Amino acid sequence: MSYNKTASITAETINPKVKIFDYEPCGEIARHAERLEQEMEKSPGSRPFPEITYCNLGNPQALGQRPITFFREVLSLCDNPALLRRDETRMLFSPCAINRARKIIESMPGRNSGAYTNSQGIRSLREAVASGIAARDGFPSRPEDIFLTDGASSAINLSMQILIRSQEDGVLCPLPEYPLYSASIILHGGTMVPYNLSEDGDWGLEIFEVKRCLEEARIAGLTVRAMVIINPGNPTGQVLSVTNQEEIVEFCRKEGLVMLADEVYQDNVYVEDRKFHSFKKVARSLGYDENDISIVSFHSVSMGFSGECGRRGGYMEICGFGDDVMDEIRKVASVTLCPNIGGQILTSLAMDPPKLGDGCFENFMAEKEDIRLSLAKRAKTLASAFSSLEGMTCNRVEGAIYAFPRIHLPAAAIKAAKAEGMSPDLFYACRLLDATGIAVVPGSGFHQVSPFLFYLFIRTASGRKKKRVLSST
Amino acid sequence: MSYNKTASITAETINPKVKIFDYEPCGEIARHAERLEQEMEKSPGSRPFPEITYCNLGNPQALGQRPITFFREVLSLCDNPALLRRDETRMLFSPCAINRARKIIESMPGRNSGAYTNSQGIRSLREAVASGIAARDGFPSRPEDIFLTDGASSAINLSMQILIRSQEDGVLCPLPEYPLYSASIILHGGTMVPYNLSEDGDWGLEIFEVKRCLEEARIAGLTVRAMVIINPGNPTGQVLSVTNQEEIVEFCRKEGLVMLADEVYQDNVYVEDRKFHSFKKVARSLGYDENDISIVSFHSVSMGFSGECGRRGGYMEICGFGDDVMDEIRKVASVTLCPNIGGQILTSLAMDPPKLGDGCFENFMAEKEDIRLSLAKRAKTLASAFSSLEGMTCNRVEGAIYAFPRIHLPAAAIKAAKAEGMSPDLFYACRLLDATGIAVVPGSGFHQVSPFLFYLFIRTASGRKKKRVLSST
Repeated sequence: MSYNKTASITAETINPKVKIFDYEPCGEIARHAERLEQEMEKSPGSRPFPEITYCNLGNPQALGQRPITFFREVLSLCDNPALLRRDETRMLFSPCAINRARKIIESMPGRNSGAYTNSQGIRSLREAVASGIAARDGFPSRPEDIFLTDGASSAINLSMQILIRSQEDGVLCPLPEYPLYSASIILHGGTMVPYNLSEDGDWGLEIFEVKRCLEEARIAGLTVRAMVIINPGNPTGQVLSVTNQEEIVEFCRKEGLVMLADEVYQDNVYVEDRKFHSFKKVARSLGYDENDISIVSFHSVSMGFSGECGRRGGYMEICGFGDDVMDEIRKVASVTLCPNIGGQILTSLAMDPPKLGDGCFENFMAEKEDIRLSLAKRAKTLASAFSSLEGMTCNRVEGAIYAFPRIHLPAAAIKAAKAEGMSPDLFYACRLLDATGIAVVPGSGFHQVSPFLFYLFIRTASGRKKKRVLSST
Repeated sequence: MSYNKTASITAETINPKVKIFDYEPCGEIARHAERLEQEMEKSPGSRPFPEITYCNLGNPQALGQRPITFFREVLSLCDNPALLRRDETRMLFSPCAINRARKIIESMPGRNSGAYTNSQGIRSLREAVASGIAARDGFPSRPEDIFLTDGASSAINLSMQILIRSQEDGVLCPLPEYPLYSASIILHGGTMVPYNLSEDGDWGLEIFEVKRCLEEARIAGLTVRAMVIINPGNPTGQVLSVTNQEEIVEFCRKEGLVMLADEVYQDNVYVEDRKFHSFKKVARSLGYDENDISIVSFHSVSMGFSGECGRRGGYMEICGFGDDVMDEIRKVASVTLCPNIGGQILTSLAMDPPKLGDGCFENFMAEKEDIRLSLAKRAKTLASAFSSLEGMTCNRVEGAIYAFPRIHLPAAAIKAAKAEGMSPDLFYACRLLDATGIAVVPGSGFHQVSPFLFYLFIRTASGRKKKRVLSST
């Protein structure tokens, strides 16, 4: 008998877990946008817009947000430490960056920035992160509890890998959801237990709704192990109130749920009446220590004022797991050896930035404030613009870098979508892309369930070069 | 009823797949070495050696191998593209590196090195990799088939995720094995089907042995989907002959197995009578195209002459999967958004290095040759040194950066190990570490099964600073 490749892997014989999830930010619309872009390259002027504006992914630097100078100078010096021995370097780099790079290089294995590091990340960089967390929260943080990671997504995947044993294990996740969560839960063989955020309540989290979902899941035989909370919200942009956070902490503590706190937008808050508080800080303020509640907090350098998405830097802080569990997590982390060094360095810089008195402090603060103001202004402009359009409503964007407006499509549009075998929101997003070159993600990509609400996901990331479209820098 | 954290995750309730694998290169010996290091920091002079020599992991730059200047210059410039607009830059960087960095930056989304890229990696960098592969093999390579990855380990994990559906799916792997494979197979819920390499045949791969293992696995009810071949071998250092490779290609084709070709040591070959040939080249030379056989080749910048382990750069080239399977792979890759940009750049540089005529060509070649010669010399010295010791034998090290000697321990040592509840090879490795500061991995960490053979895993990576121990630069 003769075999051929079809015996080994086809779309029919691929791991089915891979097939059943979707990841819409990189899905149908993104592919459609790429096709248009190629078409426009071949026939310039063939569309009524000069280029595609990719609002389908939170990717600030792709839309012109500039990186923080201090961060890039330090990275550049750490990549090429020979520069630290040359006088001319002082003409090109700030003394501040030179000092920091020297300090980082000296703490590296072999004083070299190209070796595998500890799987958790270089100790001195974890110390910098821990001290940044302690300064932010006013509560201690230990480098042993910090895992530097290739962005938040690897940290989230690792957490799911640790927690999920089988389909009988559930994880509570907000809806509309950032689809990384459903993808990761499905890939690790577990069950997502969605809870609805309240659009009428500014995308707030209502604890009775979460409780209802937890109880239903338990009745269905699931062991619910953890609750994901995204604050500020992705894709919904809300910032939770402290009172609401306290309720959530109490709830998770009482129900024995690990809190998976996605706090990657902690530096993206745009309204006066809301402030970011980490869940660890809220728990500690309530008097709960690690014996009372387990909290994993995720953060990254992709958003905030750094916007260094492609550098894949991030961390998770794990509080309240036993030493034996921590050992297992370290072992799993060691399978991919270590997080990338550039991302490790950036993460330490973002959590331990220049301080008052450092030579580059003023410049750093000015760059940071410029980005913050621009984002805040556009968050406001975008939400008001949507709300002023016929058939569209949009909650205010309190934080993160997304707007999630609601679109009331006419019956004829819904019918036309049906005729093309598309969901109405995908149909709308395709038409929008064809007419304007703006790529957005349909709300169904975030598993927004109510059948007659149509959502769009529109980025409000800081962009200098493409202000034509976002128009409010 | 009041719950607490112990309800949610403990060593008893963690995903059991996480518990059952081991990863010895970062395991017991590594932890013991770190404890010693801390002890020596507190009480200098407390041990008869000044520092720990970490030979437990292939980590060249940690032992003093210097990075390639051109690589680091380009990285440094891409991190801080502002340098490309300054005249002073020419005093610090070669024109060669400036040109390449400019070319790379211009091909990036938003001309910025901090944005998410395509999940497969930046197209221009994949083109560079594909052209490097084509030049190496003399057969075409397409950028669509290249996935840039965070080192080879993420690529291997992704492949297992795609292939493995359940415990009934098996993957053939060599023994002694690089334990990433068993870890990844276990974590993805599959079954490893080991085949023994022949120590008496210079760690060669005997096709009848593989066939025997495949047949046994099939009788046991497994669907064997793929065969892992590591060439040059890790941890065993053999380089396969073309004849042997041809047999393997024929075997996989006939049996319908996906070839997972771990080719990360392709630039580490030290003997005149062996040369590296990619499995794709061998298959194409036999006249087989992608309709005949599926091959995934893994490579990284961690080894070879670059030794950039911590930068986490690598690629996989996938040939012979259908378009629908490729789409699923792209979707899975998009869940972690994109590989880190520094690693992507390095991978393109390693596969598309300076050419004859480029200003920095000579310097690049001199650095590369220096590293190659040093590694080749030490590979030889180390294997002869082991073979000259009483109770030790060692095959020649043809490639990779490891020696895998066999140690015949006396009965008393085996008894002493038993008394301490350790495997004899772990016992020996601990004693070696305590007496000399050299950390090696016991052979059992590579799942070497024969009960009375004791193996040590000794790094032969290029090291300038620590030649005291390796003594042969």
